[in-house]
Amino acid sequence: MQGFPPPPDQRVTLANWQTPPFNRWAFQHVREVVPTARVPRGHGPVFPLSEASRRLDDLPVHRVDGRVTPVSDVLADTYTDGFLLMHAGRLVSEQYPEGMRPDSTHLLMSVTKSFVGCVAGVLVDRGLLDQHAAMTAYVPELSVSGYAGATLRDSLDMRTGIAFSEDYLDPDAEVRVLEEAIGWRPRRNPDVPVGMYDYLLVLGRNGEHGGPFSYRSCEADVIGWVCERVSGTPMPDLLSDLLWSRLGVEYDADITVDTAGAAMHDGGMCSTLRDLGRFGQMLLDDGRAADGAQVVPAWWVEDAYTGAPDSRNAFAVSPTDTRMPGGMYRSQFWFPYPDRAVLLCLGIHGQIVYVNPAAGTVGVKLSSWPSAQDATLMFDTLAMFDALAAHLS
Amino acid sequence: MQGFPPPPDQRVTLANWQTPPFNRWAFQHVREVVPTARVPRGHGPVFPLSEASRRLDDLPVHRVDGRVTPVSDVLADTYTDGFLLMHAGRLVSEQYPEGMRPDSTHLLMSVTKSFVGCVAGVLVDRGLLDQHAAMTAYVPELSVSGYAGATLRDSLDMRTGIAFSEDYLDPDAEVRVLEEAIGWRPRRNPDVPVGMYDYLLVLGRNGEHGGPFSYRSCEADVIGWVCERVSGTPMPDLLSDLLWSRLGVEYDADITVDTAGAAMHDGGMCSTLRDLGRFGQMLLDDGRAADGAQVVPAWWVEDAYTGAPDSRNAFAVSPTDTRMPGGMYRSQFWFPYPDRAVLLCLGIHGQIVYVNPAAGTVGVKLSSWPSAQDATLMFDTLAMFDALAAHLS
Repeated sequence: MQGFPPPPDQRVTLANWQTPPFNRWAFQHVREVVPTARVPRGHGPVFPLSEASRRLDDLPVHRVDGRVTPVSDVLADTYTDGFLLMHAGRLVSEQYPEGMRPDSTHLLMSVTKSFVGCVAGVLVDRGLLDQHAAMTAYVPELSVSGYAGATLRDSLDMRTGIAFSEDYLDPDAEVRVLEEAIGWRPRRNPDVPVGMYDYLLVLGRNGEHGGPFSYRSCEADVIGWVCERVSGTPMPDLLSDLLWSRLGVEYDADITVDTAGAAMHDGGMCSTLRDLGRFGQMLLDDGRAADGAQVVPAWWVEDAYTGAPDSRNAFAVSPTDTRMPGGMYRSQFWFPYPDRAVLLCLGIHGQIVYVNPAAGTVGVKLSSWPSAQDATLMFDTLAMFDALAAHLS
Repeated sequence: MQGFPPPPDQRVTLANWQTPPFNRWAFQHVREVVPTARVPRGHGPVFPLSEASRRLDDLPVHRVDGRVTPVSDVLADTYTDGFLLMHAGRLVSEQYPEGMRPDSTHLLMSVTKSFVGCVAGVLVDRGLLDQHAAMTAYVPELSVSGYAGATLRDSLDMRTGIAFSEDYLDPDAEVRVLEEAIGWRPRRNPDVPVGMYDYLLVLGRNGEHGGPFSYRSCEADVIGWVCERVSGTPMPDLLSDLLWSRLGVEYDADITVDTAGAAMHDGGMCSTLRDLGRFGQMLLDDGRAADGAQVVPAWWVEDAYTGAPDSRNAFAVSPTDTRMPGGMYRSQFWFPYPDRAVLLCLGIHGQIVYVNPAAGTVGVKLSSWPSAQDATLMFDTLAMFDALAAHLS
């Protein structure tokens, strides 16, 4: 978007904003592409992030293709917009190699789901939600959909039986049709319901609830709907009141909204790099903010790291090609390893929050991968954070 | 927009957001309806607004219909969302009678023009712009349009010969077709250019440049284009760098943007009530912020209050029905009186900044009038501010 106006073939549009090369600019200017709501930082003090100079750019990383290269090469090869590393609550490295600014809010994609999961955790803790109740108890409209009989916990762990294709390359997959419903892409089919909630009602079922893990974006959306309904509060305000305003963040966040006012619970949040680091640090510190206040219930965070007795089995038999043997998915977080407590928040096109409590390490990377999914870029990034955590601990 | 989701007939849409009853919610949630850019407040301190308790709600006001009623009645009768009164730089009254919050950014409509005029003033003062040069010197593309030969000063004072109907009730008036071009309303005519700048190029001329004052929104848009081009900086950043970040404001502002990235220079800015008061106070204090820093050149502000030798004549012979006998329009500000230095920034649906240097008084009112224009509501509001200023001085 250079020039006044930019040449027509270089303009970021609703049709091209998620594709390269347009996605790099677009992910940092989402509010200029689609309507968004403000997630206020509130009026409290900013919790400072101590500066630190250890950049560790030369640390070797074992890459997916067998090479061993320095961290700087991984960052360069993985379309990095922002990279942040914290150890023991202190900043170790903060980099913006391609012009992202410290005050740029970058699209978090499905990292948003982890925020919505935390909102649900707070509401469960306050007694507003029963995680084992059927969601139709809160949103009766869902009884006409495949969600009839599904519990909040089923959706939190992505173990409903909802038929929902997450094939980003198929324009007819539910994950892409949902984007037509909410205004993230031009409408091709006039029969697609308008707005996320009306779209959720037409989703069907192709399995039993409580079965295998299967990655479905709609699960975060239905959780968001339930949270709004029981609290009587829109998600942007829930995010602010329960999380964002309590983390000592520097900037307001953004979240995209559809024409019916529903926030994009499964992927529409945008934040600065450093503020996302503060969220990650809270997930390392048992749900406490830097000032010691309990933001997300400690038991909720601990339960996520622990999982249910059958979480790993539900993950092992997943139809989703996770490439995380022995891992699990719990409460809208990924746990990639069988034997180490590493928590990930993941979003397509390279958004990641890495939390390694044993190593006292939090990492954040915001990116503009050309493709929505790329196993090489993903596991090179994970290897980089593991190497950094091992070095720091 | 109550409910999750709101009933379809109660949803604010691109088609209804400027009409009652939807405009009340929409004017405080513009970023949730259309894409917007952030106008950062920067990182400087907030300049405090001293609290004060004199509300003056009982002060009598001579109304347009001959009645004399208290200020509180005027506020109640004129669809007030926010009302702020300052005297000698101190807050006298701050009211949000219909649920607007102190952190809500409210659409300023054409008050935006006064901001863009100030941006131009700074750029002129810095030697980047010659106000008496033809604007084609800066934006050569304009030579194919009616703007060929018009100077920046012609546009600043709305004295070009451009054919542009400001009839808000006529959907075919240029002011409404412009809204189709920039995405403020659903597109009816596929032949309308996409984006503000391409639309400006198709405007023709029906008079000589330098003639009578005629209120045309496009003048602010062409000024904005010139400012962006000479500075190489998008208007949201110009507004922030030159004005907003220097006024000690509390919140970021918003400004709507079109699909080509152009800001809505003639009416798309949104700010909080108090922050708009800080802008008004700067216009009272000869262009200085509360910390004494010169934000807008003093000579530019003084020139606006003074006018050109023929400003009042150009206003008197205007085809626009101003109902301000003896007044004038200068540098994107209104001056309603022949004999008193009162400066106004005005926007449709009841947005006003009132600056009365002799009385040391600044007033702000943000509203949701049902109609774009309403002389009774407008002149009742002006009479209220005049009564308050007379009482305070």
